[in-house]
Amino acid sequence: MSERAQVSAFVERAAELDAADGLAALRKRFVLDDVVYLDGNSLGALPVEVPGRVEDVVRRQWGEMRIRSWDESGWWTAPERIGDRIAPLVGAAPGQIVVGDSTSVNVFKALVGAVRLAGEGRDEILVDATTFPTDGYIAASAARMTGCELRPVDPDELSSALGPRTAAVLLNHVDYRTGRLYDLPSLTSAIHAAGALAVWDLCHTAGALPVGLDEHGVDLAVGCTYKYLNGGPGSPAYLYVRADLQDRFDSPLPGWNSHAEPFAMSSSYEPAPGALRGRVGTPDILSMLALEAALEVWDGVSVEDVRAKSLALTDFFLECVAAYVPEGRVESVTPAAHAERGSQVALRCADAGAVMKRLIDNGVVGDFRHPDILRFGFTPLYVGFADAERAARVLAETLG
Amino acid sequence: MSERAQVSAFVERAAELDAADGLAALRKRFVLDDVVYLDGNSLGALPVEVPGRVEDVVRRQWGEMRIRSWDESGWWTAPERIGDRIAPLVGAAPGQIVVGDSTSVNVFKALVGAVRLAGEGRDEILVDATTFPTDGYIAASAARMTGCELRPVDPDELSSALGPRTAAVLLNHVDYRTGRLYDLPSLTSAIHAAGALAVWDLCHTAGALPVGLDEHGVDLAVGCTYKYLNGGPGSPAYLYVRADLQDRFDSPLPGWNSHAEPFAMSSSYEPAPGALRGRVGTPDILSMLALEAALEVWDGVSVEDVRAKSLALTDFFLECVAAYVPEGRVESVTPAAHAERGSQVALRCADAGAVMKRLIDNGVVGDFRHPDILRFGFTPLYVGFADAERAARVLAETLG
Repeated sequence: MSERAQVSAFVERAAELDAADGLAALRKRFVLDDVVYLDGNSLGALPVEVPGRVEDVVRRQWGEMRIRSWDESGWWTAPERIGDRIAPLVGAAPGQIVVGDSTSVNVFKALVGAVRLAGEGRDEILVDATTFPTDGYIAASAARMTGCELRPVDPDELSSALGPRTAAVLLNHVDYRTGRLYDLPSLTSAIHAAGALAVWDLCHTAGALPVGLDEHGVDLAVGCTYKYLNGGPGSPAYLYVRADLQDRFDSPLPGWNSHAEPFAMSSSYEPAPGALRGRVGTPDILSMLALEAALEVWDGVSVEDVRAKSLALTDFFLECVAAYVPEGRVESVTPAAHAERGSQVALRCADAGAVMKRLIDNGVVGDFRHPDILRFGFTPLYVGFADAERAARVLAETLG
Repeated sequence: MSERAQVSAFVERAAELDAADGLAALRKRFVLDDVVYLDGNSLGALPVEVPGRVEDVVRRQWGEMRIRSWDESGWWTAPERIGDRIAPLVGAAPGQIVVGDSTSVNVFKALVGAVRLAGEGRDEILVDATTFPTDGYIAASAARMTGCELRPVDPDELSSALGPRTAAVLLNHVDYRTGRLYDLPSLTSAIHAAGALAVWDLCHTAGALPVGLDEHGVDLAVGCTYKYLNGGPGSPAYLYVRADLQDRFDSPLPGWNSHAEPFAMSSSYEPAPGALRGRVGTPDILSMLALEAALEVWDGVSVEDVRAKSLALTDFFLECVAAYVPEGRVESVTPAAHAERGSQVALRCADAGAVMKRLIDNGVVGDFRHPDILRFGFTPLYVGFADAERAARVLAETLG
């Protein structure tokens, strides 16, 4: 088949797949242009609901109602209310998630909390060696401040690393570089079999695939909201503490927002029941309510459908890349097996930094990850099959 | 003098004082209505610059430029850039303040950092007993996690409490209930004389009076930005680390944003030089850039002038209250001496909660603090003398 015929065939297939896509209508709920935006795993696109909501929060709730909005506009309860909105996306019943602070701060709360829940005699924290760096840095601090030792491990060798000293294990559900998905159910089981607590970082899975926190008995989890949840730049992160652990969850950041009676202004600390115990200080309302508006896109959307589309998109993209890009120019480091693939494709490529610059100049936005990775994130809510085909075609032209 | 003549005289004086007020023109830079807003020490009013800026951040920077804005819209450097904007308001040279996280989280960073800077053999943290509760709760956690003992002390008895075991002292510059201003220079000196580090909470002074962090050799400081700095509900807090301590500042929250080379994604942690070391995770851009716009109000404004007006306002309000309110109905718990007064007046009053509700219904917004305090905050940028007179008059009517 000629190159032109090959392209025509893929373009035609893309059009058919887009026409059959039950999620395709969601694209119009985002502000998008003619760029192929494959960086939603770094910063999700702007949902059309958000600007109007933010304007209302600023002009009316802050500007006109001012201090009254803490009660009357629901500011005070936003962290747990928005947590409950995220809950179904990660397979959690209500009352277990609060939104607030950065992912890093939540990793600290979760890991220190996990070590304290693990109890006496357990003095080791395991963290995946390939993790997004902040998790490792914060885990080192949590270990130092709880008298634990930190051991980086390859998640594939976790079972041999687990032992009677293990207090907690921090794992990323998807590796931010390779896009590899780890087996949360079996790793959580192995951690529990060793008597330790499982802390999962969901930054690269929440909103991209079913997580099943409750179903799989995860102990604590954290995640950001600015990737597949489209909450906006630096929007607040979240903390999940499983319901039956909440009474014993002992936060290292017991700010007044986590007090049982915050406005009693008592000098003695008494933690609130439930997920509220994970709150710290005054929530940043502008960012938080922008996120709340962004989450409305999810009404009536099934995460299973999102996952099915995500796999179809990354399959199709890999197929186009294999067909279009000359042999040997790129190598996928993202697993081919569906069970091991997140919602991104990472291609190893010589001179990846410069290549990504050219791709962006040519209307395909992914990102470069040190030292040699081209990273393409597929957000099923707004990326279509024609986007995937075009991205592969532009990549081939850029490398050609 | 008849009651009516008395009111007329105060109204006339208020008009004269407002006419002579060099800061009066700033009022039009805020969104205000005919309410007397004396709750700017809880949530500052909306600066007129903010809505348009936020709209631009949402629609153009996020919606159109998306991920490029981290560089091209200056998102990445916002924490230190906005820190430098706050610096002159608290008497700090550039390069010592970063904005981000909540006050509670910054108290944790500052106190743990201070204990580590104090070095071996010092294992006690002192905290003012009357402090805003979150400072005490977080100080208890910092003490627990650094092997220190926490001792609440009355700031008036600080010098007898200081000793060779004291590592750090956390003090509020102004007491949130009484409005009492503590003597930062002399208390800092006493702390230093004992070989300990001084950590100041500036929530109730930044933007209301000169602080002089550098001049008085304060070691670390934190503060919120939603009171006298008008950054918006839950806008990010800040951390000051004095320049000569930065190289040894050892943060308990070493997130990737505080790394010397964050995008190297190195598995080993190497702290950034300077104030950046106080950063943690990804900054919440919407709230942060709203704050940046809010701070533009301060261009060309002298904090000394703000302080002079603040004292004149609270003096005048107290004078009106004394004249209007029947003897014995309220008692000021705010010190009469200027050197001991912040920018609020706290009146003890029977049934204060219900009284404040009626005041608010009658167009005078202050707040109630448990158990018996009516709190009136005076933000010199937008509160005038006529407001002070009217507030006292409505208070007298409400109690009458």
